[in-house]
Amino acid sequence: MKSKSEYLHGIEDVAGNGLLHRRLFLKGGVGMMAGAGLLSAVQSSAEPLEIPSWMKAPGKHMSPYGQPSQYEQGVQRIVGGTPNVVGSGVSFTPLEKIHGTITPTGLHFERHHSGVPSIDPEQHTLLIHGLVDRPLTFSMDALMRYPTVTRIQFLECSGNSGRSNLMAQAQQAPLGALHGLVSCSEWTGIPLSILLEEAGIKRGAGWVLAEGADAAAMSRSVPLEKMMDDAIIALYQNGERLRPENGYPMRLFLPGYEGNMSVKWLRRLKVNAAPTMTRDETSHYTDVMLGGKAKILTFPMGVKSIITNPSPTMVLPQPGVYEVTGLAWSGAGKIRRVEVSADGGATWAEAALTDPVLSKSFTRFRLPWRWNGGPTLLKSRAIDETGAVQPTRDEFISEYGARSNYHNNTVQAWGIATGGEVSNVIA
Amino acid sequence: MKSKSEYLHGIEDVAGNGLLHRRLFLKGGVGMMAGAGLLSAVQSSAEPLEIPSWMKAPGKHMSPYGQPSQYEQGVQRIVGGTPNVVGSGVSFTPLEKIHGTITPTGLHFERHHSGVPSIDPEQHTLLIHGLVDRPLTFSMDALMRYPTVTRIQFLECSGNSGRSNLMAQAQQAPLGALHGLVSCSEWTGIPLSILLEEAGIKRGAGWVLAEGADAAAMSRSVPLEKMMDDAIIALYQNGERLRPENGYPMRLFLPGYEGNMSVKWLRRLKVNAAPTMTRDETSHYTDVMLGGKAKILTFPMGVKSIITNPSPTMVLPQPGVYEVTGLAWSGAGKIRRVEVSADGGATWAEAALTDPVLSKSFTRFRLPWRWNGGPTLLKSRAIDETGAVQPTRDEFISEYGARSNYHNNTVQAWGIATGGEVSNVIA
Repeated sequence: MKSKSEYLHGIEDVAGNGLLHRRLFLKGGVGMMAGAGLLSAVQSSAEPLEIPSWMKAPGKHMSPYGQPSQYEQGVQRIVGGTPNVVGSGVSFTPLEKIHGTITPTGLHFERHHSGVPSIDPEQHTLLIHGLVDRPLTFSMDALMRYPTVTRIQFLECSGNSGRSNLMAQAQQAPLGALHGLVSCSEWTGIPLSILLEEAGIKRGAGWVLAEGADAAAMSRSVPLEKMMDDAIIALYQNGERLRPENGYPMRLFLPGYEGNMSVKWLRRLKVNAAPTMTRDETSHYTDVMLGGKAKILTFPMGVKSIITNPSPTMVLPQPGVYEVTGLAWSGAGKIRRVEVSADGGATWAEAALTDPVLSKSFTRFRLPWRWNGGPTLLKSRAIDETGAVQPTRDEFISEYGARSNYHNNTVQAWGIATGGEVSNVIA
Repeated sequence: MKSKSEYLHGIEDVAGNGLLHRRLFLKGGVGMMAGAGLLSAVQSSAEPLEIPSWMKAPGKHMSPYGQPSQYEQGVQRIVGGTPNVVGSGVSFTPLEKIHGTITPTGLHFERHHSGVPSIDPEQHTLLIHGLVDRPLTFSMDALMRYPTVTRIQFLECSGNSGRSNLMAQAQQAPLGALHGLVSCSEWTGIPLSILLEEAGIKRGAGWVLAEGADAAAMSRSVPLEKMMDDAIIALYQNGERLRPENGYPMRLFLPGYEGNMSVKWLRRLKVNAAPTMTRDETSHYTDVMLGGKAKILTFPMGVKSIITNPSPTMVLPQPGVYEVTGLAWSGAGKIRRVEVSADGGATWAEAALTDPVLSKSFTRFRLPWRWNGGPTLLKSRAIDETGAVQPTRDEFISEYGARSNYHNNTVQAWGIATGGEVSNVIA
């Protein structure tokens, strides 16, 4: 057996302050770390094993529809709301309490403008009209016969992180409350190109108005080109029919575009020559820039990453080796690379990306890190397949100012104190 | 505009009885079909649209944990049970009512031998002992610090389809009740090789006994080679911590192996020289062969496919174009190809496979089909990346006889009557 110093010698930093090579866990490095006492969270065993109470009598019967363990009741969406506006508000995905890339359907973030309608699918229809050869009405039964596609893709509210990363003082809250207006699901639905082809697009058409069947009649204008590219009428989410808060019985789904445009409870698509300039794309969802001018009709979400673990309000129990992990995504396509820094951005190490890396989807990244117990500034930054790099906070503010509520994809920093406390920091 | 006969001319069969090319929906074929009146499930529109009741008042507020629509309460697991045995039985995934490749977590199939224990994670530990240098005990807190991997993979009960496809008379029931002891999830957990490396495997070790913390103390022997290859200690399923019926707070997960071996509520791994020959691998989960001899310790699940839509008890409303879709999987790796026949196996057409095609995972296949209203025999067969072909019922029976309960991966036939009724048939 090797000595402790020999083991330690085998674990070389690839960037400052203890970042280790992404392949360390794949090539015998764990044995080295165990030998070096770096995986200290284990103890020797005691035999024979005790028989716990739950092994002494049969457990519960099978159930028609499963629910989380009673010990996981704290894993919930963080529900917000707009004062004095019934049914308007948000709920955040608790990104720090889940893992992998799929968001549990019950924890998908919500943003409603007039609450969640309870729609009877037998009474609901989809109308396609405007600049078309044949206006068409689709019942749910009719739609169910159409060909479908299945894709795993993220959905992010345009306002995600808007308030959490631009304030003068960093907000202290669990990650979900800071960045949780983004989720990722397996979506199955009908390519919209099929339905539009069937209706027949007339010359001069360039935009499509999408209207929801909620009490706000939420409406957005979508470029026809996007509708004919990868837009779908989503019917299933993570295998089952959409949940009410995600648009049951159908929603528009526009991969990579700001979430608000993937209109829920979709009831109407009107093919037009130009954008409609609805309330929801003028008074909301416009990007106020430095100097007061505003950008309008800004659709794709930028390349972004966040470290989910460790993250604010967590406490590292002791120095040692940890897995730094997080999520990266881009509205422009696949994630090419995620880098992690443990010295505030002075040096960076490449994280391992979990296969399969999919377009416009969450990509989970991971990197081993040896915390020496000292103050630490952790950051991540993502680069997508177009070469776009996640901007710094300063870069973003120099373009948008610090009052912009939308499209905030800036690099986020977490501070770790000598006691192990993780906090949100501006850096 | 082309005439109806010109459109029809453009839609050529690629195999007998109306099977159309898998790329039809991708290259303007839909316009052709619409022109030909083959997509008959649409009507012209009526404007202005009526305002439904759910648009006249704000809807429900955000919620901490979402549930399916009240209109989807019928989408449930089909719960079975063993008479006079408390907590023993199965529940089936309703494969015909879901879509995509991910199984909704609440609908993942169940097979319990003594019910579902309610385990307090703070009291639960995992012991690794036997032929190791350092016996180790892991608390949940300790495990949560280890590096993880994420993979989308199927889990199939060894007894899936065992009774549904070998009887002399075909059983008439929805697909889930016939073949629903298989599901597919995104699993996140710790590579077991890391924990075994940390414990240190002694010379002479070849097998590992895995024991569950249910009242049956369900136990199976697993080859050490598999444990060091792709086995994980699964902690998360579709993003959230395992559900109780899937092994909360942790389960063994052995990609591609019969489900029973992915021991739930895992509490102990003992490294041994040889298999333990537990009750669960001798009296159960052995394959009785033709002639009465039995195969034991048969682990990987074979290559298999089923058509989920149309499937038994459904009724096709009228002649026209339908999407034939289903699922394929193999315990040996990726699905290479799925073929569909609409003439009882005389001719076959290649189905489109949904990207990404992942190893030991559900692969969704799809193929357009024009039903002429006549009696039809639909079949699918899958071929995996090793070249293994899904066997016919006759081939299977010639090896195992018709009494085998396990590893039944035979080709399944659905009959369609002139009235559109779909039934299970032996063919």
